Amino acid sequence: MAVRALWFRRGVLYVVDQRELPGRTRIRRLRQIGEVAEAIRTLTVRGAPTIGVAAAYGMVLAAKEARLSPYRAAELLRRTRPTAHDLFVGIETVRRAWAAGADPLAAADAYRARVVEECHRIGIAGAPLLAESRRVLTHCNAGALATVEWGTALAPIRVARDRGADLFVWVDETRPLLQGARLTAWELAREKIPHAVIADNAAGHYLASGQVDAVIVGADRIAANGDFANKIGTYEKAVVARENGVPFYVAAPWSTFDVRRANGASIPVEERDAGEVLELAGRRIAPTASPARNPAFDVTPAKFVTAFVTPAGVVRPGRVAATVRRAARDAA
Amino acid sequence: MAVRALWFRRGVLYVVDQRELPGRTRIRRLRQIGEVAEAIRTLTVRGAPTIGVAAAYGMVLAAKEARLSPYRAAELLRRTRPTAHDLFVGIETVRRAWAAGADPLAAADAYRARVVEECHRIGIAGAPLLAESRRVLTHCNAGALATVEWGTALAPIRVARDRGADLFVWVDETRPLLQGARLTAWELAREKIPHAVIADNAAGHYLASGQVDAVIVGADRIAANGDFANKIGTYEKAVVARENGVPFYVAAPWSTFDVRRANGASIPVEERDAGEVLELAGRRIAPTASPARNPAFDVTPAKFVTAFVTPAGVVRPGRVAATVRRAARDAA
Repeated sequence: MAVRALWFRRGVLYVVDQRELPGRTRIRRLRQIGEVAEAIRTLTVRGAPTIGVAAAYGMVLAAKEARLSPYRAAELLRRTRPTAHDLFVGIETVRRAWAAGADPLAAADAYRARVVEECHRIGIAGAPLLAESRRVLTHCNAGALATVEWGTALAPIRVARDRGADLFVWVDETRPLLQGARLTAWELAREKIPHAVIADNAAGHYLASGQVDAVIVGADRIAANGDFANKIGTYEKAVVARENGVPFYVAAPWSTFDVRRANGASIPVEERDAGEVLELAGRRIAPTASPARNPAFDVTPAKFVTAFVTPAGVVRPGRVAATVRRAARDAA
Repeated sequence: MAVRALWFRRGVLYVVDQRELPGRTRIRRLRQIGEVAEAIRTLTVRGAPTIGVAAAYGMVLAAKEARLSPYRAAELLRRTRPTAHDLFVGIETVRRAWAAGADPLAAADAYRARVVEECHRIGIAGAPLLAESRRVLTHCNAGALATVEWGTALAPIRVARDRGADLFVWVDETRPLLQGARLTAWELAREKIPHAVIADNAAGHYLASGQVDAVIVGADRIAANGDFANKIGTYEKAVVARENGVPFYVAAPWSTFDVRRANGASIPVEERDAGEVLELAGRRIAPTASPARNPAFDVTPAKFVTAFVTPAGVVRPGRVAATVRRAARDAA
């Protein structure tokens, strides 16, 4: 059965609690906008496209509650997390429909359907890039959990595998919250796609020793020039991939592109609680006197990106802004 | 009180159990060569210079037990771990004395004293490099725990601090076994040296954003051309440091240099149990169906090294072999 990160039915947003995977598959029922905001803040739901869709349904719940104006409801959800651009697109899409007197649920459903369809097209566009790449490295989770269905980085892997490609996936564990070891490995294991989990530190060793044929990751926000924010550690993988001549791909739906932003310098990078680094499974790993820093994302300059995999196909960094603007015109 | 990783008294080798830090400071008493071999294999004692000294005392215990020949005792200890060159130097130093009828304990004591004194000289040689570097990044633990006293990477930090330098240390947590978060942070916290623990993934973010002035690490083996093996992840930090113009220093005593080896290609890299990646504090973090790979070291090419900090001073990679040979002649 395919993974689905969330679904909406009869006034309830059902989300897979991603904090509890892979140990338990627990479904949370969210009935109020405040519960959705909390689920996003705590990473119960996570992944840029998924939180965009969750927030869209959060707006639907707010419209039903009718305590907040469309503007106030949007404000509340916008403050949950600063980096993923999809969050703001999902909120704004429903806010506009609601404010214009249209049906918020229809707007949210259409938004979800669009994200899922774009991820499927990313899979089809990206699969040929990986057909010759037997060993693919990915960082964090850019799978179905992160995008409702299909995934961004994992979509081309899924499509290539369905077409008979013999792929192997190196899964960076992705400290501090282990989205690779917990979530990407869970998705791959369910579908029996061969893989191995590695400490983030080991990626360089495999890149330098000729054991990685391509790197593919998702993104949280992509600027007009192709600079992009993604899970902390992405930048290191990109630099080391280029050093070793290994192609580096970034897969994302349109909602991740923020082409009104010229470059990556002004992308806000969330710093999360130090406890995520200092504690593991509730146990302190560092001395009690030691502080920690915990940036959740880093920004990778466009020069390290071989190509973006978009719903409209494979795009070189220099063509990002033009491609996104054309897609927006075509959709209008 | 200064940290000491081990000491030998009346036929017993006392070692700090480095698996239990920082939670507990537990001292293990080792009375037989087999116990020393096991302590090295299980990382109860770790760090290239420290395991060299531990193995030297393991040879002393074997000579006292008198069940094994010097050759067989050396064989047993050599098989514990493959990468750190110091291990083989420590064993060989005592084996030669023992086989020649000299006092093994005197040879081991002299070896320990030499390592400690060389680390102190490394501190003095390296401190001026860090005097202007307010923010220093280190990976793994190359402190007193790894070298009996002083440290390699941490020795210049200690000396610079004692001379009044206002240093701050970024501590890579160093997955999978967290020697940075557990051991380096513990040493720095004891001495009130300002620091912050970060996920290994975050080092690139701080290097790229101008928040790291120098990187300094230890080594497990250094080849004649300056290629060197060190804890997995070191290579990524070196590549990203060079990309950002941040100096990258490698500190090591003579026992770490293996100048009969022309370059890093033939340095044996230990692969440890997958469980070290898949489990944390006894809890499985990845799906049970997911395998892992766990290389304990990587090899960084000499071109990424700004300089080596040795007991004879600061040495450019191209001068490694000549410097080591001259030091050996001077000592003979």
